Amino acid sequence: MTPAIRILGVDPGLRATGWGVVRITGNALAFEAAGTVRAPTTGDLAARLRALHDGLDDVVRAWSPDEAAVEQTFVNRDATATLKLGQARGIALLVPARAGLAVAEYAPNEVKKAVVGAGHADKRQIRAMVRVLLPRADFDSDDAADALAIAITHAHRRQTALARAAS
Amino acid sequence: MTPAIRILGVDPGLRATGWGVVRITGNALAFEAAGTVRAPTTGDLAARLRALHDGLDDVVRAWSPDEAAVEQTFVNRDATATLKLGQARGIALLVPARAGLAVAEYAPNEVKKAVVGAGHADKRQIRAMVRVLLPRADFDSDDAADALAIAITHAHRRQTALARAAS
Repeated sequence: MTPAIRILGVDPGLRATGWGVVRITGNALAFEAAGTVRAPTTGDLAARLRALHDGLDDVVRAWSPDEAAVEQTFVNRDATATLKLGQARGIALLVPARAGLAVAEYAPNEVKKAVVGAGHADKRQIRAMVRVLLPRADFDSDDAADALAIAITHAHRRQTALARAAS
Repeated sequence: MTPAIRILGVDPGLRATGWGVVRITGNALAFEAAGTVRAPTTGDLAARLRALHDGLDDVVRAWSPDEAAVEQTFVNRDATATLKLGQARGIALLVPARAGLAVAEYAPNEVKKAVVGAGHADKRQIRAMVRVLLPRADFDSDDAADALAIAITHAHRRQTALARAAS
């Protein structure tokens, strides 16, 4: 019997970072948990990043994922927004890396293609497909749904890579 | 007698993060230490950020600063560079915050004004003034010199704030 593997997906943001954990057993994919880490929107930036770190760190400790995947940031925005997102993304990459996990990165259009089958899917389509692929999924925000989509993408990609390695 | 306060200055970057520690005793400013944390330039981003975290964390543990100051990133560059810098900067803010320090932020022109007296000073002028203000300063890179300049800026600003509070 193939042992189950838990994958953590993270959709980073300074105000709200979505996270989702899926379990793969053989070829079967199942929902484990999902949620949103909300950092304070006021106060100094270092304290906000610390809150984000501590929230994600709690998730990693609670769910003990085996692998992690983080959404590659969409940089086609103004410099200040890009910088903020970069800071949150640094934390999102750091926390699983410090826990000893390999951390994969996927561009938004790769996630959309893997989940919906098209690179230009909207948020509503992603939520709908996450519910189809993970019927028991329970998520509290678009960010958490996106995080589950990222975890699903990584689950597909690693299965393909394993199948290729075995053939 | 006024107790000595140690200030950590950080100039964040993904390849090289400069750091410098200065000591203030009353109105006297003195050099404690400075250096550069160099993260691997290859490998996955999460591992590089982890190396940056661990290097800065070692500095905080070794020098036990009381306060920290981080340079505000110059965002007038391309989006990819801004994102990379943002990720490194997230780590630079996180490490002292997790150690319980207050973390101030200063824009590059504030640092130049505080150290050289003009907002448009170049790197050579900053290095020269750091050597004048901290005669014992020993630094191994422009990033470490910048980090000392940031620590000096915070030392000046906090003295001004304290003087204002006492009057």
